[in-house]
Formats: sequence, structure tokens, C-alpha cells
Amino acid sequence: MVASDDMPDRESPYANDPVFALHLGGKMEIASRVALDGPEELSMAYTPGVARVCEAIVADPALADDYTWVPNTVAIVTDGTAVLGLGDIGPRAAMPVMEGKAVLFKQFGGIDAIPICLDTVAVDEIVETVIRLAPSFGGINLEDISAPRCFEIEEQLKQLLDMPVFHDDQHGTAVVVLAALENALLLTGRLAETTRVVVSGAGAAGVAVTRILLAAGLSDVAVIDRAGVLNSSRGPLNDSKRALAEVTADLTGRRGTLADVMVGADVFIGLSGGTVPEEVVATMASDSIIFGLANPMPEVHPEVAHRYARVVATGRSDFPNQINNVLAFPGIFRGAFDTKARAITEGMKLAAAEALAAIVADEVREDLIIPSPFDPRVGPAVAAAVAEAARRDGVARR
Amino acid sequence: MVASDDMPDRESPYANDPVFALHLGGKMEIASRVALDGPEELSMAYTPGVARVCEAIVADPALADDYTWVPNTVAIVTDGTAVLGLGDIGPRAAMPVMEGKAVLFKQFGGIDAIPICLDTVAVDEIVETVIRLAPSFGGINLEDISAPRCFEIEEQLKQLLDMPVFHDDQHGTAVVVLAALENALLLTGRLAETTRVVVSGAGAAGVAVTRILLAAGLSDVAVIDRAGVLNSSRGPLNDSKRALAEVTADLTGRRGTLADVMVGADVFIGLSGGTVPEEVVATMASDSIIFGLANPMPEVHPEVAHRYARVVATGRSDFPNQINNVLAFPGIFRGAFDTKARAITEGMKLAAAEALAAIVADEVREDLIIPSPFDPRVGPAVAAAVAEAARRDGVARR
Repeated sequence: MVASDDMPDRESPYANDPVFALHLGGKMEIASRVALDGPEELSMAYTPGVARVCEAIVADPALADDYTWVPNTVAIVTDGTAVLGLGDIGPRAAMPVMEGKAVLFKQFGGIDAIPICLDTVAVDEIVETVIRLAPSFGGINLEDISAPRCFEIEEQLKQLLDMPVFHDDQHGTAVVVLAALENALLLTGRLAETTRVVVSGAGAAGVAVTRILLAAGLSDVAVIDRAGVLNSSRGPLNDSKRALAEVTADLTGRRGTLADVMVGADVFIGLSGGTVPEEVVATMASDSIIFGLANPMPEVHPEVAHRYARVVATGRSDFPNQINNVLAFPGIFRGAFDTKARAITEGMKLAAAEALAAIVADEVREDLIIPSPFDPRVGPAVAAAVAEAARRDGVARR
Repeated sequence: MVASDDMPDRESPYANDPVFALHLGGKMEIASRVALDGPEELSMAYTPGVARVCEAIVADPALADDYTWVPNTVAIVTDGTAVLGLGDIGPRAAMPVMEGKAVLFKQFGGIDAIPICLDTVAVDEIVETVIRLAPSFGGINLEDISAPRCFEIEEQLKQLLDMPVFHDDQHGTAVVVLAALENALLLTGRLAETTRVVVSGAGAAGVAVTRILLAAGLSDVAVIDRAGVLNSSRGPLNDSKRALAEVTADLTGRRGTLADVMVGADVFIGLSGGTVPEEVVATMASDSIIFGLANPMPEVHPEVAHRYARVVATGRSDFPNQINNVLAFPGIFRGAFDTKARAITEGMKLAAAEALAAIVADEVREDLIIPSPFDPRVGPAVAAAVAEAARRDGVARR
């Protein structure tokens, strides 16, 4: 065919950019698991043979778990409203992230994930759409949906669906942060009960990180949003913030600005973007722990953080201690699918964090509080711990 | 892990059945097109690198065609209401058919197709859901949705979406039937204009086959449903049947039962199931053409058909002249995608049929009126003809 003059990649400014070269044509594809070399195979994989498999599933719906790809699939559902640090870029521009996620699901969890980028931002429409799609998938991974809508959507889907529903920006981040923090506490000789934590950000990640820290035994967590420490005396809060205030500063009495609560704090966890001034960082406790997780610019740059803190983590792959969700979500879904879990419970998330922390606990160092995503022990260890927790929590179906 | 006693495939009655063995674990999977061997690749395919690709698409939405998998993807959308000859078996039991279709899309068209089995049968809900999903896909293949809802759904989606929308049970079947019929007419020395056709079935396939035959120059097509020849004097008809009557028997004046119109008919096309009595087959014109396309039981069994007809086709792979949609849909979508077509036009369908017929026109025989699905010329020939027609019809975007 004649090359037409509007083929957009020809004179693209991205033509020699390795990141764009890697994305050309997309990052994923469908592959067949069956050989269709002739009419015989065709008549087994498709008509007339396939009709018998359909009929068997009609007679016993559970057979869909054995004879379709559904039980190993995840829909990666987004509306594109909170993509990475880019914000509301819409469903079409969000696709490269969702494809990347799908590739990670396969490589690290053996899971078939399909990007579903939705052309609606209405909570009820997203929920309704996912419910209608549900027969096609074994689980739902919510991704890059802005707060507080993400909380409502997840909550409704968990109630309406009998399958794993997991908002990775919340719970994936929470699991990996908890794992890293446990090793950092171990290394600095701290006890969870007496550790003072500042969480900057009350969005999806901030809410979920705070909740898992409380579930893991930490008790003094101050959550910061633009108006300072989140607490109920501040005036009207949305539902998720009010609920969070009630289990954090309302109990501890912490008040004030970021600068106020950073004085003497043991741990800073940045989940909000923005930059913490160096003079504020300087007021933290000695041997402090700083996780600046905004990408690409951590809230506290590692160079600055290392002047004051003993343990430093970021979300970036070019520094040690990368807090990367890929350490969690593939193994969590693998463990859930291996047990045909009806849900992903709090116990399964805590078990994932424990398993992740345990991988490097024996060799823990300032620059090794969390394993590398490429550590081959990660996926299997997380999956096994999650599967065990699913059985313990009574959500396993096998 | 310990094998649990409820693992359903252990003592399954299907354990030694080769069709079920082939379906175990599903027939398809996701594959990565990028190597993620270390942090460097990870930071290109996922954060932080991927953010630049997202930003580029925000700035120029057309770049999604270059840097995502979307332009090569098709959603195979069904509600499970008219699956093969099995009828309304629901979305979950329909999945093996949709997976088979996806495998065929990949093997014969290089297209990434994703089964979307919907938990709703309401026309407006199906349309609304597909619209919401649209940013994730490059085209929509409607599948196994019962008539007349399938007509409304297709019509609405074609109006609302700026991408190929194709109901394969209608148009895929129609394209292959037309191709085969053209070669059968050639072989038996008939002219389209003077050939008398009986189409049994006024469902999705019957409607579309009849319409493409008329578009291709046939003029005497009698469509039969349970009440006999479809015509407006029969009383109230639904929209699709009334429209079909107006362009068939209302013009020719044909009336009566199947047995009535079969007397002297040149061509019988069975798209309805059921069996045509041998004494009725015996009344057709000499050198007749019989396509019994119901699966697995043709309306006229080839053994019976051969007693009276010169050319016999079925939907089965174990007889010659298999009318198989896989001859059409992969190449049609390939041609549409290669030209970034905004729609699939009537011209593109006719071009697909012409290209398909032409492949074996030089060597046409009673047992070779249509190529084998495994003939490597099929996909490229159909795709090229469809692409050319897309440009001719003004729907190509490159």
C-alpha cells in the first residue's frame, strides 16, 4: 500500500525518543492459547465443538471457572480523572498507564488484565457499567479514579460483586508503604505503638495508607491536607475525610500545619506532591524515616532527606527503596484468584504487607527496606500469604 | 499448596474429552509486547516514563492511534441471547464462543479482540454501556445478540460511534454467503437478475443475507419465517421484518409456505434451523444450489441435498464449501483498521464478498465455491479490498 501523508508517526517529534519507541503500536496484545492449524482444531475451538462447552456451563455455571479465561482476568477500570501525577487527563490519554499496568499484571502475577477506560465520570454510571461487565472478568482493579469518588465506587462495587475489587492507588500503595515502614521501624528500633507518623495527602493513597497503618498497630498518625492536620474541629469535611479525622487527630489531639506536626515526628509519608521545606524536614526526630512518594518529584528530595533522616524511600526506580505498587497488586490478585476469593479482605492486605516485609527482613539495611520489583520471591510470597489469609478470613472458595 | 477437594476439574466428566481439554484454562491470554527485564525498562513502560506518553496524547489525541493498542482492538460484545444454535444461554455461558472468536480475530486478522459479555439484555443499556467503553476499543463486533434487538443496537451504535461497528452474525454471514453464491451462480451459468432465491429465516442472518443479495443484484428473494413467505399483506410485522418484506415479496408477489416457494427455486439458503423435507427439496429447479447453514444440523443434510442439487454448502467443517464467518470478519476489520475507517460501509462488505469469491473463481468447482479458512490468501485479499472500498466510500482516515 502507498504510504499516506497523514501517517502520524513519520515526522513525529517522538520518533527518536526511546520511551515513545517502546510504546509504538501499544504495549500489549492478545495471544491464543490454542493451536488452530486446521479444520479439526477450528471445529474444536469454535463451532461446532465449542457449543458443548457452552452447554456444559449452562448446566453447571461453575465450569466457567475451568473452561474460560474469566477466572484469571482483571478489568483495569479507570475514568482517567487522577492519572499518576497528571490529574484529570481523560480515558483516552490514560490508556498507556493502563496498558503498562496490564503488562505488569501478566509479568509479575500471571494475570490477564484488560484496560477498560470509561467515558463517564459519574459514580453511579461507573458502578452500573462495571456491574454489567462483570460476567467477563474475574476481578476488578480500579485505577486512577479521583477521590472521593473512588471510595464510593469501590464501596458500592464491593457490596454488589462477589469477586475481588481492589483500588490499587489506595490499597496497593498502602500495602507496600506498610511493608517498607515495618522494616524501617525494625531498623531504627522503633515500636509501632509509640511511633509518630505524618501522612501528607488525604486522597486515595493517603486515606488507605493511614487506615492500614492503624490496622497494623500504629496509633499516632496525623493526616495533612491543604488546610493542615485533618480533624473534625476544623469545620465541614467530606465523608472520607471526616471518617479519617475521627480515627486520627480527633483521638490524638494533633492540630496545626504540616510544619507544626513535623516537629519531632518519626515518620513522614508524602502522598500529595508539593515540596516540604528543608527547614521543616530538619525538625523531625533523629533517625527519622522519610518516604517521599510523589512522582517524578518526591515531596522531600532524597538528597535533602538524607541530611536528616536515617531511612529514605521514594516512588522512583532510580533511588534505593522504591515504593512500587507492582510489589503488591500482582501477588494480591494471584493469591485471590488461586483461592477463588469472593473479596479482598483487610486481612489479605495485611498479610501481603507482612510477606513483602519478610522477604528482606533478615538483610534489612537503610537502603534495603523493601525488595526490588524484580526479586523473583516477591510475587509467589505475596500470593501465598494472601491465599492463606483468604482461607483464614473465610472468603476462599477453594 | 494442598489440592483442595473441590477443584472441579479433577473428577469432571469432561476430563478426557479433547474439546474440553483444549478449553481448560480458557483459549486466550494477554501478552506483553515489551520486555521488562529491569528497572530501566520498567521506568519506560510504566512510571515515570509513561507519563510523557500520556501528556503527548493530551496535547494531540490522535497520538493514541500510534502509542496505544486501542486502534488494533475490537470489543466482541454479546449479551448471550442468541449463541450459535443454542439460543439464550446468558453472558457467562457465551464466553467460550467469544474467546474462540477472539482467537480467530488474532490468527486470521492480527487483531486484538476482547470478549465483553454483558449482564443486561436491554437495548438502551447495551448501547449506553458500549458508548461508555468506547475509548478502550478501536471497533465493536456485536455477536450472538437476538433479533430484532440486534438491529436496533447496531443502528444506534453506528450513529453514535465514529468507529467500525459490525454485527458479525448479520454481515459476516452475509458476506460469505454472497461470495459463495456468486461462485455457485458462475458454476451453474445463472445470472443474478433471473435467479430465484429462498432464504429460510428472518433473524439476524436472514435479514442481512437478503439485503446483501439485493445489493448485489439479485431481485427475487423470498424470505421465509415460521408463518411462511414474509410479506406485508400477512398482517402486523416488526420493523425489521416489515422493511424486509417491502424489498422482497411485496415486490415479487411471492406468497405461501416454504413448500410453495421452493417449487422451481434456484437457490435455497437455510439460516433458521429446522429440516426441509426431502420431497420439498425435490421440487427445486435442476442444477439447484442448496446452502444449509444451521449448525450442527443443516436444514438439508448434504447427503439429501446432493440427490437434487448441483452445489451444496453447509456451515460445517467436515463437508466441502464451509460457509464460515471467519472468512470475512478478520479481513474486514483488518481493512477497516488499516485505513482507520470511521465505519464499515455497505461498499466495504460487498468488496469483501467480491474479493473472497475471486480467490477461487478461476478454479471454481461444485466442491470449491469458497476458499478454506486456512487459505493464506483470504485475510490479505479481503483486507485489501475492504481498505480500497473504505477509501472509495470516503470513510478512510488514512
